[in-house]
Amino acid sequence: MNTIKSIILSACMAVNPIVISASGQTADKNINEYGTEWQWNEGTIEVESPQRAPGQKSVLGLALPAMESVRVGFVGLGMRGPGAVERFTHIPGVEIKALCDYEQTRAEDCQKYLEKASLPKADIYYGENGYEELCKRPDIDLVYIAPDWLHHAPIAKCALRNGKNVAIEVPSAMTLNDCWELIDLSEKHQKHCMILENCCYDWFEMNTLNMAQQGVFGEVIRAQGAYIHDLSPFWKHYWKNGENDKLGWRLDYNMRHRGDVYPTHGLGPVAQALNIHRGDRMKTLVAMDTKSVNGAALVTELTDSVCSNFRNGDHTTTLIRTENGKVIEIQHNVMTPQPYNRLYQLTGTKGFANKYPMEGYALGKQQLADAGVKVDIEDLSAHSFLSGKEKEALIEKYRHPILIKYGEMAKEVGGHGGMDFIMDARMIYCLQNGLPLDMDVYDLAEWCCLAELGSLSMDHNSAPVAIPDFTRGDWNKTKGYSHAFASPEQEEASMKKAIAFTESLKAKALKNKGKKSKSKK
Amino acid sequence: MNTIKSIILSACMAVNPIVISASGQTADKNINEYGTEWQWNEGTIEVESPQRAPGQKSVLGLALPAMESVRVGFVGLGMRGPGAVERFTHIPGVEIKALCDYEQTRAEDCQKYLEKASLPKADIYYGENGYEELCKRPDIDLVYIAPDWLHHAPIAKCALRNGKNVAIEVPSAMTLNDCWELIDLSEKHQKHCMILENCCYDWFEMNTLNMAQQGVFGEVIRAQGAYIHDLSPFWKHYWKNGENDKLGWRLDYNMRHRGDVYPTHGLGPVAQALNIHRGDRMKTLVAMDTKSVNGAALVTELTDSVCSNFRNGDHTTTLIRTENGKVIEIQHNVMTPQPYNRLYQLTGTKGFANKYPMEGYALGKQQLADAGVKVDIEDLSAHSFLSGKEKEALIEKYRHPILIKYGEMAKEVGGHGGMDFIMDARMIYCLQNGLPLDMDVYDLAEWCCLAELGSLSMDHNSAPVAIPDFTRGDWNKTKGYSHAFASPEQEEASMKKAIAFTESLKAKALKNKGKKSKSKK
Repeated sequence: MNTIKSIILSACMAVNPIVISASGQTADKNINEYGTEWQWNEGTIEVESPQRAPGQKSVLGLALPAMESVRVGFVGLGMRGPGAVERFTHIPGVEIKALCDYEQTRAEDCQKYLEKASLPKADIYYGENGYEELCKRPDIDLVYIAPDWLHHAPIAKCALRNGKNVAIEVPSAMTLNDCWELIDLSEKHQKHCMILENCCYDWFEMNTLNMAQQGVFGEVIRAQGAYIHDLSPFWKHYWKNGENDKLGWRLDYNMRHRGDVYPTHGLGPVAQALNIHRGDRMKTLVAMDTKSVNGAALVTELTDSVCSNFRNGDHTTTLIRTENGKVIEIQHNVMTPQPYNRLYQLTGTKGFANKYPMEGYALGKQQLADAGVKVDIEDLSAHSFLSGKEKEALIEKYRHPILIKYGEMAKEVGGHGGMDFIMDARMIYCLQNGLPLDMDVYDLAEWCCLAELGSLSMDHNSAPVAIPDFTRGDWNKTKGYSHAFASPEQEEASMKKAIAFTESLKAKALKNKGKKSKSKK
Repeated sequence: MNTIKSIILSACMAVNPIVISASGQTADKNINEYGTEWQWNEGTIEVESPQRAPGQKSVLGLALPAMESVRVGFVGLGMRGPGAVERFTHIPGVEIKALCDYEQTRAEDCQKYLEKASLPKADIYYGENGYEELCKRPDIDLVYIAPDWLHHAPIAKCALRNGKNVAIEVPSAMTLNDCWELIDLSEKHQKHCMILENCCYDWFEMNTLNMAQQGVFGEVIRAQGAYIHDLSPFWKHYWKNGENDKLGWRLDYNMRHRGDVYPTHGLGPVAQALNIHRGDRMKTLVAMDTKSVNGAALVTELTDSVCSNFRNGDHTTTLIRTENGKVIEIQHNVMTPQPYNRLYQLTGTKGFANKYPMEGYALGKQQLADAGVKVDIEDLSAHSFLSGKEKEALIEKYRHPILIKYGEMAKEVGGHGGMDFIMDARMIYCLQNGLPLDMDVYDLAEWCCLAELGSLSMDHNSAPVAIPDFTRGDWNKTKGYSHAFASPEQEEASMKKAIAFTESLKAKALKNKGKKSKSKK
């Protein structure tokens, strides 16, 4: 893994764009630090996007044959991975085949979750190339990827090339090139490539999405999201590659890269509410950051030398305009002290929803009545947040079906208050019922592209950047975002099979108790 | 007044920029709808700015000789004007000489405030050019201007040309040209031209400014502000020019103009906290708006025809980067239902302040202790807002001296909770003590330029626009924003004179009771 990391990092060190003079062309072609070609078009930066290869087909709405059970391999068991393994032991119809990490002990540690759940041990993979062996196994359906950011895309590509479905932690791709390669591989192999954006499954976001889809807010014309989280207590917990690594991978990444490098918690939920590539698309972005004060100070403190070139501003703001004239604002700040805030907000022509610092809805009396909520208060006005009773009634009326189904169990199993479990359970449900997943590879690309496109904007005085259409022409084919559901009968049948499968696994585990698992470097 | 209005409005109808080919130059010169010349410079829009005339001097830090009493004429007595007249009757050492409005009755109605305060009647001016006569009077020191937006700058220019000090309601200038003309007139005549930005005097903003100036938040690197106010209940209250005017001036203005046309409530308080043109300056802006849905629907509803070219987006967002690498975000939305919100927020390297929807501060334990506040809570963390006790102690410690002085009386007199009175009282205090005013003509220009510069950005796909240096080179001469104060002795002496003056006025009023005031068209 180190080889990949150092190749990518050294590529990233070339901060200034290389200008290639292109004689005979109206605009010069430029290449940025990530190798992306771009040019000016009347004040807007346009990047080159690859054509779809002949014969390659879109994966929009991709549904694979229903899987009776889902055989999973986990790669990356440092911070987010172990929790995922544990959660999967609570999902019926899943077999955890393999556990992989750069460090053998971290992979082996996760066996405890399987043991606790009376499930058979998994095979262990470790070392720099451990994941390659895992990906080659014919008996794995899904590779669940949760290492450091720089390894998300390389491991996912390896898995896709081996014909596996993949689920990738956020941010799933760090560059435009990664986005396009994942799209091409997903299309070529017709396999799922899902971004594990857990914040799409948080309670307020899901209920509010349901309200938006039912028209409670009128037309939603503006949406906000963010990752504002002072990471000062956490920096030291990110994996370090040996004694000489003073920073840990995440701080190191922030030091070397400008742009909103962690945009998906904010963007994911609002992109769904705005039907991005289901009737609308993100067309233009501009980004602006503050200078780095705390970031640079942190590096100076942790290393022996003054850091004067910390690339990532302490606070980054990105504005996006859609084809249909709507605006999305996304912020990123992991450096300054303030309360955790994902800024989730929908502004509609008839109503308003806002999550932080307190969850609230604002709707006129008529709008609330139209939404089917009995109005008790006479002087209700959209100028104020709904008070307790009306708010409760609104939420009750629009509780998202997925929360009704998984909510209780999710709170028991846990993982960021339950949303992680709902995300995992939904993915397995869709695979077991042969349905499209909630988030596809185009979502992945759209949500992750803010990092590189934002740096392009900011390195050119916040110039507008045209956002590629990652669907290559299909953004308006699907009308509205939706979660796929099986019929009650099919759902019942597949769940029955899943439960039976897990029971048989447990029986097998009991039989094999004490046997050692395979361990491969 | 109608003539001015129609000239400006018809000029505004030409939405598309006229391109003037400038052969022999590297970049073509363009002219926008407001007559501003601009050109591209490597992806950034740069506007032409006028040179300072020979001999003309800056008004940075302008202090005029102390005025024993301040003789005031009010122009524009529709919505904001009458409240101002009433407030001035509570300020010692003020003589209200003249009241002027387009409509005679509205001017005369305001005599009631003078009567109620036992003060002499003022002279009345009315009609289209009434303000011109008022401005010519030699016995007026200050013209207080509060008509519709389009008349702010023309009336102020007239007053300055007649050697008067002026105070102008917000937004005080609607175009770059207005900004420069006001600056030139203020400089040429060496008179004050103050923007009446009342939100600079609101309680939370003032205390927080004091904290920022004392370093409580470390270095403030990002600030937010907004005018988010659903005006649907208010549109019909804006003055209409006869039966054929279906919209009223404010909706009409919004229909014809793109950009954040009402930016100063948001920008004023944060510009002070960031020391704009007192050590830093706004350098670049980008703006992005949503399409107009509710605005256009409103016009369609109020007129007989479908409105398909409502220029002002329902929600406009502007990002500004400063010379020192800080970011300001300003939003504008008067169209969609949601709670009133000025978004006031300061993000510092060591602390955080946020006003809406609830006032809060976030500071680490050490930072709070350094700020001189006794810390009672053991598990205090900058991750959360301070709870009641610590918050109260912090506010108590940093209560702004101006609030201590005027706060109680302001709450009694009223006007947006008292902040209007504090603003007026501070202006008169500074004039009576021969001090620089809290807000100068450069503040006015900087805060108002967002409208035209934002429209330039948005009409070019949110391109970056270079913000002119309205101080013409002096932005870094003053180190830090401050309010001017006289010595306690001087303050006492001037107040004594002011009170005596008002007493003599009241005696005069008693003597002249029943006499008619002058009324001029």
